Amino acid sequence: MAEDQLNIQALVCPVPHPHDRHILLGHGSGGKMSQNLIKNIFLPPFDNPTLRAGDDAGVVHIELENGVKEQITDRFAISTDSHVVWPLFFPGGDIGRLSICGTVNDVAMMGGIPKFITVGFIIEEGFEIGLLINITKSMKSASEEANVSIVAGDTKVVQRGKADGLYINTTGVGVIPANIEIGGANAKPGDVVILSGSIGDHGIAVLGARGELGFSADVSSDVAPLNSLVQSMLNKCSQIHVLRDPTRGGLGTSLNEIAQQSNVCISINESSIPIKPAVAAACELLGFDPLYVANEGKLIAILPPEDADVVLHAMQNTRYGEESAIIGNVLTEPSRRVLLKTVIGTTRIIDTPSGEILPRIC
Amino acid sequence: MAEDQLNIQALVCPVPHPHDRHILLGHGSGGKMSQNLIKNIFLPPFDNPTLRAGDDAGVVHIELENGVKEQITDRFAISTDSHVVWPLFFPGGDIGRLSICGTVNDVAMMGGIPKFITVGFIIEEGFEIGLLINITKSMKSASEEANVSIVAGDTKVVQRGKADGLYINTTGVGVIPANIEIGGANAKPGDVVILSGSIGDHGIAVLGARGELGFSADVSSDVAPLNSLVQSMLNKCSQIHVLRDPTRGGLGTSLNEIAQQSNVCISINESSIPIKPAVAAACELLGFDPLYVANEGKLIAILPPEDADVVLHAMQNTRYGEESAIIGNVLTEPSRRVLLKTVIGTTRIIDTPSGEILPRIC
Repeated sequence: MAEDQLNIQALVCPVPHPHDRHILLGHGSGGKMSQNLIKNIFLPPFDNPTLRAGDDAGVVHIELENGVKEQITDRFAISTDSHVVWPLFFPGGDIGRLSICGTVNDVAMMGGIPKFITVGFIIEEGFEIGLLINITKSMKSASEEANVSIVAGDTKVVQRGKADGLYINTTGVGVIPANIEIGGANAKPGDVVILSGSIGDHGIAVLGARGELGFSADVSSDVAPLNSLVQSMLNKCSQIHVLRDPTRGGLGTSLNEIAQQSNVCISINESSIPIKPAVAAACELLGFDPLYVANEGKLIAILPPEDADVVLHAMQNTRYGEESAIIGNVLTEPSRRVLLKTVIGTTRIIDTPSGEILPRIC
Repeated sequence: MAEDQLNIQALVCPVPHPHDRHILLGHGSGGKMSQNLIKNIFLPPFDNPTLRAGDDAGVVHIELENGVKEQITDRFAISTDSHVVWPLFFPGGDIGRLSICGTVNDVAMMGGIPKFITVGFIIEEGFEIGLLINITKSMKSASEEANVSIVAGDTKVVQRGKADGLYINTTGVGVIPANIEIGGANAKPGDVVILSGSIGDHGIAVLGARGELGFSADVSSDVAPLNSLVQSMLNKCSQIHVLRDPTRGGLGTSLNEIAQQSNVCISINESSIPIKPAVAAACELLGFDPLYVANEGKLIAILPPEDADVVLHAMQNTRYGEESAIIGNVLTEPSRRVLLKTVIGTTRIIDTPSGEILPRIC
């Protein structure tokens, strides 16, 4: 049985394969093992249309009554993320900034305007309060930049050795304007694929901070709130079909998710994908494919070709979208596949990675 | 400097007291150390009126547009809780049921009708998938009972030794009906205090499951969703002033929070407080005051005296409120204090506990 297959049946076998009985780091990678865990373990008990959509945030309808008891229905985007990044501080950011931006971005990727954030701290006994103060300052700064309020919080302390310093869960709620219909299942053949900037910065910056590169990479994480970028895009075109931030699992994994949700083929051009020389060099040396390295301040947009130029121009005029580029387009066949046209003119299939890529990158 | 005082100034002293520099288990207890951590470290950067209210859930207003572009404002209750209970399974429940009920109850304590829950799992590498399946079944069952949908989720896996099996964050969103104004600051002199049932069951059940009692207590946790109990109360009286579930820190801590938020004195009668003989016996043997032992399926209600009987009767007719009793009333002085009239006729002050009570009880 392949390592990436999670077979619940095996649980009742007398001598099941250990991969089927225990959680492995790969189950948290965002790749195939994560997808199998969600599909086989979490979706069956929790199943509902919102979860089944498999998007960055759940879109819910709440029926409200206005003053004259007229029923209206409004849509909200709700998203949650636990942040276990290690180390807690890295070039370009820290777990505090990451925890706000990660959730703000997931709400924004459904076209939601993020409004409220909750924060749940799990702290290891003995953690330095000075570090906690620095992290909360970073959260304050990121939430001000993203224009969200922290409206509820919780703190738990666990004994030494039962966590790794600090974990932070954030959950975000945003309002989706009436005319917006964004979702991973909405990509259509003929659509254009735009990427908002260079890939792999976050992953390489965190690896560098771990001292795992073996050399100095001089790369900063791209961690940033993307909601104002999204608003500047939606101001130009309300017909954006898909938005997604390629975090854990990187660009390659996110494009595969969209291709599967939309039953389309996504074709991208290697030569169009922005990548910093230092990131490319680090990936080359370490044997990583930058397509699978995490980002925390980038987005993929998929939209009708007639809107591509105006949206691209709007993106390039924003702080976090200066390097935006058209990187490909959506085709009908081969369905549920991502194709890469390489710089040497060949085409290769970009698959969802199987197991663990880089643990605790976010 | 007392152990329960967290002095940020000390952080810059050359030789600060270690209690001021590092997180201790007591900072997660729900008592004074927790309150100081929130007041000194979390509130200054995150400050806003919603957080400052210090209630079980944040109450937020969202401006919406209905179909004819008329602006309306509706109120939502948002609450978050990370669950780190150990052991994961205990008589009467498990971390799955606890994680749903804890958040459902926090939303309900603001008069909110809980609608949506998000779930964030932090799983230790090597965790048994069979246990995870049992825990998700338990979450499914609790969310069905509470009539809430799980609309977003996240899974992170950390290396062996970087967690303790499984931690679960849940965040809940509920709608607050227009005529409800519940909050910890709303208790008024003359109000009556009702408790929905016996105290200390959860804490003693978890201690028993840890094998820390040294004897068999035959006590089950009371962990339960209280939103239908709250609705049956609000159906009889929309003028309930305060609702709170006395979880971490127990009844004594919750009443102190309310007395401080409302600037009142709360006086309770020891003889009126329901307590199971097995819980009383366990507390007696271990030297615990049951007033500070955690509950996960009980609530305190504070309301005008003219409504007390009808609300009490409604509570006693529900599954989780059968043992409801009037346990005291609200006075003007001594302000911000909780007084206990003991069974032997004396009066003693019930203070907020200082440090750690029982770690990882929820």
